[in-house]
Amino acid sequence: MLTTSDHGRVRLLTFDRPGALNAMNNDLYWAAADGLTAAADDPGVAVVVFTGNGRAFCAGNDMSEMGGGNSSTVSAGRGNGFGAFTDGLISYRKPVVAAVNGLAVGIGFTMLAHCDLVLVAESARLKAPFPTLGVAPEAASSVSFPVVMGQQTAAYYLFTAEWMSAEAAVACGLAWKVVADDALLPDALALAGKIAAMPIPSLVETKQLMVAGRVDALMAARARENDAFGRLIGAPANREAIAAFLEKRPADFTSLPEV
Amino acid sequence: MLTTSDHGRVRLLTFDRPGALNAMNNDLYWAAADGLTAAADDPGVAVVVFTGNGRAFCAGNDMSEMGGGNSSTVSAGRGNGFGAFTDGLISYRKPVVAAVNGLAVGIGFTMLAHCDLVLVAESARLKAPFPTLGVAPEAASSVSFPVVMGQQTAAYYLFTAEWMSAEAAVACGLAWKVVADDALLPDALALAGKIAAMPIPSLVETKQLMVAGRVDALMAARARENDAFGRLIGAPANREAIAAFLEKRPADFTSLPEV
Amino acid sequence: MLTTSDHGRVRLLTFDRPGALNAMNNDLYWAAADGLTAAADDPGVAVVVFTGNGRAFCAGNDMSEMGGGNSSTVSAGRGNGFGAFTDGLISYRKPVVAAVNGLAVGIGFTMLAHCDLVLVAESARLKAPFPTLGVAPEAASSVSFPVVMGQQTAAYYLFTAEWMSAEAAVACGLAWKVVADDALLPDALALAGKIAAMPIPSLVETKQLMVAGRVDALMAARARENDAFGRLIGAPANREAIAAFLEKRPADFTSLPEV
Repeated sequence: MLTTSDHGRVRLLTFDRPGALNAMNNDLYWAAADGLTAAADDPGVAVVVFTGNGRAFCAGNDMSEMGGGNSSTVSAGRGNGFGAFTDGLISYRKPVVAAVNGLAVGIGFTMLAHCDLVLVAESARLKAPFPTLGVAPEAASSVSFPVVMGQQTAAYYLFTAEWMSAEAAVACGLAWKVVADDALLPDALALAGKIAAMPIPSLVETKQLMVAGRVDALMAARARENDAFGRLIGAPANREAIAAFLEKRPADFTSLPEV
Repeated sequence: MLTTSDHGRVRLLTFDRPGALNAMNNDLYWAAADGLTAAADDPGVAVVVFTGNGRAFCAGNDMSEMGGGNSSTVSAGRGNGFGAFTDGLISYRKPVVAAVNGLAVGIGFTMLAHCDLVLVAESARLKAPFPTLGVAPEAASSVSFPVVMGQQTAAYYLFTAEWMSAEAAVACGLAWKVVADDALLPDALALAGKIAAMPIPSLVETKQLMVAGRVDALMAARARENDAFGRLIGAPANREAIAAFLEKRPADFTSLPEV
Repeated sequence: MLTTSDHGRVRLLTFDRPGALNAMNNDLYWAAADGLTAAADDPGVAVVVFTGNGRAFCAGNDMSEMGGGNSSTVSAGRGNGFGAFTDGLISYRKPVVAAVNGLAVGIGFTMLAHCDLVLVAESARLKAPFPTLGVAPEAASSVSFPVVMGQQTAAYYLFTAEWMSAEAAVACGLAWKVVADDALLPDALALAGKIAAMPIPSLVETKQLMVAGRVDALMAARARENDAFGRLIGAPANREAIAAFLEKRPADFTSLPEV
């Protein structure tokens, strides 16, 4: 699920479901949420780095659990891992670096707006597929994307569900640097290590000050997005999206009953 | 005043007072506000596109109605069309694309910060002339311009009233792409059509989520700007601006009584 | 301390402690705060320009006064000049241009996010050294830097305390233009003069409208930053930073007691 390793004062958390392109099921959400909490509480950890094992960073929500299903047993009874991970990341108290090694879809894309420094491999591609699934933005991206990328860029990627290139991610402000695929993890650990040489109390206060300036707007977005999701899930467009996915055909949203 | 046509699920609204460079009088404000409302209420419309007929997108407020005059008869008794149009656009529930075909002055410029995706023809030029008229920013641009363009760019154009080029509009984040003049409308309709292929409920929820993150700040700006306008209209600088305009001479604001 | 001169309707304020690289002691903070107040109250002043005499714009807080010491006599009994200057600049009612002629460190860097238009000499370099001193961001930079520079850029410079080049300052949105060192002051005065040709009431209303959109968030950041500073000053990392400075050795923050 999630592999953990320490590099000096840097905690590396690796999404590790490569067979599923690191799609997030409830177990992985909880593993990531728990990994964040453990790193926050560990006095020897200054910086957290996220990356993915295999050709994806994170392929988004596991479609098999869409609509509230929970196919896992490990996290059974622990409730909504998505919320725990997302809200934990939004209000995290230590610097977070992301090393985006490949596909970053859905939460794999939207989580990046809550990371302090994002390095993207040149082959990485990012997508917010929400309208193609008949749903709407999540993880506070309806507010974080306009703030981080600019209003026009956010509108383009949220309305069209187009792929964003690594270069475009840097150009719009979502990411800090594009690096060669082979250099991604070394460069991310070097950047994190540079930050980790600073005093941890300064890093924690700095991060908390930055979070304090935006957390209320992001949590308000989370609440509104949850409401919107409740209205859209299971509605005709979402049902058509799922049917088209299962039938391996393009979805057709233009002949749905008008609303 | 305003020409309406449908292209699949895209509603095209064309400012159509070419003899007046599409300057906004109260009739045109109301026509645009009504056009927005009709498109919002039409279940077959997914996306609205604004453009202008002739060599201007919109030349700003019709100077002949400055100071509250209303030369029109059509909108007589309907009150302030500027507010209806601006507030309607700020809180609009469907995606809005702008195809800026030429001069965009005053409201023709400031409205763009409330459009989701702005395409600018390479010959387009934009201007916020407020200080040269002895007034101050309107249509929430005192807040939207810093957010959308960046603080320095907004300050430059709001304080100097300089022309902004199409390239500068894209570079600062106000616009999405510069396109060749001949390609503007086809490209805008193609972009809008790509969005319009998505399910309308997803588009509406997405747009409303994005609006919810900024609408309070924008409406607060609108109220403050109205107060400022009330203090400035008819004051010495505004009177000098109007006199200079009528006398076809440059205004001189440096010899006004000090305040 | 601070040299004042008028150029038409432009008030030039020059930090003038070149022997100390224009480091801010309490006297200079108060001189700058008083200079701002006098220019705000002078009906003949439209725009304020800040620059520095010598090879620095401003080298930050005078280290000899760190921790609350006040080595000056002029400002004795006047209290915290830092707060008076910073809060005065954040809520200033007239346009402010900065001409960054050289080193801009600490407050010399963070104050720029509250200036409307920043010109940087090509040889200028900027730094936010807070974590290397065991402290955290000040002058509302924990909120202003993400807004003005973008979230990733702000995180990089606030967490690493790296030097920012003049080009990078423009690329990220903190500054408006890079100019040749020799052209800096003439260009800044020309830009300020262009603004100063506009009616002062329009400039004041415009600036106040822009400030109104951000002042609450900035003042909330100021309060949080003051609290953080109180927790960090005199704590182990800050003591190690000061000891290393006095002993002319690199600080080592990784062997401090964990917190």
